[in-house]
Amino acid sequence: MHLFRQRVPSTVYEPIRYFLRAGGKRVRPVVTLLACETAGGRAEAALDAAAAIEVLHGFTLIHDDMMDNADTRRGLQTIHRKWNDNVAILAGDEMIALAYHSLMKTRIQNADGLVRAFTRAFIEVCEGQGLDSEFETKHDVSLEEYLHMIDKKTAEMFSAAAAVGAMIGGGSKREVNALRLYGKHLGRAFQIQDDLLDITADEHLFGKSIGGDLKQGKKTYLILQAVERTRGKERRLLEKVMHRSRISDDEVQAIRGIFERHGIVAEAQTLVKNNTRKAQRAIARFRPTPARDMLAWFADALMVRTS
Amino acid sequence: MHLFRQRVPSTVYEPIRYFLRAGGKRVRPVVTLLACETAGGRAEAALDAAAAIEVLHGFTLIHDDMMDNADTRRGLQTIHRKWNDNVAILAGDEMIALAYHSLMKTRIQNADGLVRAFTRAFIEVCEGQGLDSEFETKHDVSLEEYLHMIDKKTAEMFSAAAAVGAMIGGGSKREVNALRLYGKHLGRAFQIQDDLLDITADEHLFGKSIGGDLKQGKKTYLILQAVERTRGKERRLLEKVMHRSRISDDEVQAIRGIFERHGIVAEAQTLVKNNTRKAQRAIARFRPTPARDMLAWFADALMVRTS
Repeated sequence: MHLFRQRVPSTVYEPIRYFLRAGGKRVRPVVTLLACETAGGRAEAALDAAAAIEVLHGFTLIHDDMMDNADTRRGLQTIHRKWNDNVAILAGDEMIALAYHSLMKTRIQNADGLVRAFTRAFIEVCEGQGLDSEFETKHDVSLEEYLHMIDKKTAEMFSAAAAVGAMIGGGSKREVNALRLYGKHLGRAFQIQDDLLDITADEHLFGKSIGGDLKQGKKTYLILQAVERTRGKERRLLEKVMHRSRISDDEVQAIRGIFERHGIVAEAQTLVKNNTRKAQRAIARFRPTPARDMLAWFADALMVRTS
Repeated sequence: MHLFRQRVPSTVYEPIRYFLRAGGKRVRPVVTLLACETAGGRAEAALDAAAAIEVLHGFTLIHDDMMDNADTRRGLQTIHRKWNDNVAILAGDEMIALAYHSLMKTRIQNADGLVRAFTRAFIEVCEGQGLDSEFETKHDVSLEEYLHMIDKKTAEMFSAAAAVGAMIGGGSKREVNALRLYGKHLGRAFQIQDDLLDITADEHLFGKSIGGDLKQGKKTYLILQAVERTRGKERRLLEKVMHRSRISDDEVQAIRGIFERHGIVAEAQTLVKNNTRKAQRAIARFRPTPARDMLAWFADALMVRTS
């Protein structure tokens, strides 16, 4: 990223460069670029805004990993582990500033709408992270509360990624809203797919260890659904996760069995599929262009991803 | 603050409310409001931007206190101490988002200039904090490096406070720059005065303990000047601070004696005074209005503050 190639101090920029070099799927900026073209603009015009979205997402990962005490991210040591907590806090803070800086490089008549959409997503993602933390010590999270949390933590950022691209592309209010809706459903599908991958993924491809959410006692779609469907021995095992007790790899496999026996894996897959269809329907009215078709294809591709 | 009176989740907003209720001197928002009037606007128009500046400043205090392991702030327990590190990280992050949200409530034709000035100060303050951290383990910080650090960590935010107010007030480019310069010199004076207060303040009025910077091994204007002027026993005592060794209250008093004997306190006071005069000169060309005179008076008042 040319944003800060030469900048000092190195205590701030070296961890940021380290983090961004590790890559990641870059899902959100792709949405921004394609949304811009779908709304009638040229993707190049949305490059700075797409970078802004990705850098803001990066900040959330760095701070969240610190709060979750995670050891690895994108196959590398997390910043707080490789350096220390202070470095991770400051690198994350600076990334927020760099994200706004990048956003403001967008050549557009009036950037107010961009800044508002961006800031709204930023507020939502912080609130979502707050809810997620509260869930850790709460033993009776409902499915509804969970869906509300992932809307804030994930779907709003996808919405903003699409809306910002649509605004830069010169989309009408209606077009911006259609693309915003695309982003929202895509984000929901993406997050539930993430919950699924925690238990169904190939560890090597996924880049994280299988059952990590379960071991951390994360309240995911799967576990919340399973708790409602089970009794006796099965229920007691799931309660261990809900109460954040230590669970073994064998127990992870047992829980996976419970999810499958009760049809919860299939149900989650259906939910992912339905949200993917809704995302695609949201953009159906746009003039058929390669960019619009790419957005539709992209939603399908994310649904079958393995990492 | 009506910004978020009703907002949830409480894990995020309760610590923010707690922090903002504690007050503080509100120096930066006062600069924003007066700069707006000085440039020809009505102070009310800059209220949301002034709140944004103060909330952004609040974020830096919350994260810095965590990094410095500070126990109290504004006479209250720091957030990471009263709650925990995760709460402090998230509350600080959310305050950045709220600051931008408040800034964007400003009624102005085109907010681009505001967002740019605000974002620039935000980048600088992060870089300044990074330099400040690097200084902790560096034993040969020069006075020049120190002044560069405080420009980033303090003066740029004062500059932005003034510039943002001036833009909202409808100031010309020249007027905005004049007020920006006022803010910069005021910020420098303010920071050196802060360094002075660490050793000369009345502990009760100051709200922090005397010699706190020395005990933490902070490189301040006073210590950096003193190291260059001393030898033998005096120098060895100062080196203890430079190397962050534990020092006693008696040693704090001994160091105060060194500062006074070598004329360093008087010199720092002169530096504060000179920057104050430069701030005042920067706004001398404005039409004499009560707001302009208040800005000039305000600079003098900060110079003689005891807390």
